[in-house]
Amino acid sequence: MSTSSETNDIEDGLTFQPKFDASGLVTCVATDAGTGEVLMVAHMNDEALRKTIATGEAWYFSRSRNSLWRKGETSGHVQRVVEMRVDCDQDAVWIRVEQTGAACHTGRHSCFYRKVAGGEGGAQLSFVDADRLFDPAKVYHK
Amino acid sequence: MSTSSETNDIEDGLTFQPKFDASGLVTCVATDAGTGEVLMVAHMNDEALRKTIATGEAWYFSRSRNSLWRKGETSGHVQRVVEMRVDCDQDAVWIRVEQTGAACHTGRHSCFYRKVAGGEGGAQLSFVDADRLFDPAKVYHK
Repeated sequence: MSTSSETNDIEDGLTFQPKFDASGLVTCVATDAGTGEVLMVAHMNDEALRKTIATGEAWYFSRSRNSLWRKGETSGHVQRVVEMRVDCDQDAVWIRVEQTGAACHTGRHSCFYRKVAGGEGGAQLSFVDADRLFDPAKVYHK
Repeated sequence: MSTSSETNDIEDGLTFQPKFDASGLVTCVATDAGTGEVLMVAHMNDEALRKTIATGEAWYFSRSRNSLWRKGETSGHVQRVVEMRVDCDQDAVWIRVEQTGAACHTGRHSCFYRKVAGGEGGAQLSFVDADRLFDPAKVYHK
């Protein structure tokens, strides 16, 4: 258990002490600095955080590939970080970015290109802002 | 391993099939529908997702308390959901909300009230939009 003074320091202090989960990761939300749209939700380990802060470009840790990656290293669709913030318990960061091209590997500007709405037979999805800005097959040579 | 057709259906289909992690959770990002500000990052289990969709108010699953909670049930600071979206691999949802009062348990409108910036001795935090809209000691009777 954390003590009350530790909690106060994490929540109200000015020391950056990211709270990594059991896999060594924090959650990162990237939004478009111009529109406020959420572009993607991904993860950063300590090295990705450090590189993002040091370089001003977004680096992440891929859980599926188990490796560090610079956003856009394959596609060229880099993210320039305008501002980084951390939340109250320091287990999530929010970056406002200038996105070159598209954030999503499917070719859309944002990964959130489907709306969820309730219906009689349960929740249904519908496309919204789902135009592809690039052809993933060409960019990733799949 | 998922097959290519399964991946296609998850990414390009219109069936809502949230991909819960080992703890049965998806990540949820809540943004202010008016300003685009990220208010909080939290988690939803299947029941929280269903209740949020059915009621139009945000429900979450607290990992620390291991229980479902309706946002604002203690503080009155509820979130009315304007829109819900799901991301490409369906392991994260984004809700745009009208926030009554403040989203953060510390009394701030957003949980992201500190900026992270690099410095000579490592990353440093500074307060930004950190005014308290309520006194947590009074609201939560701590």
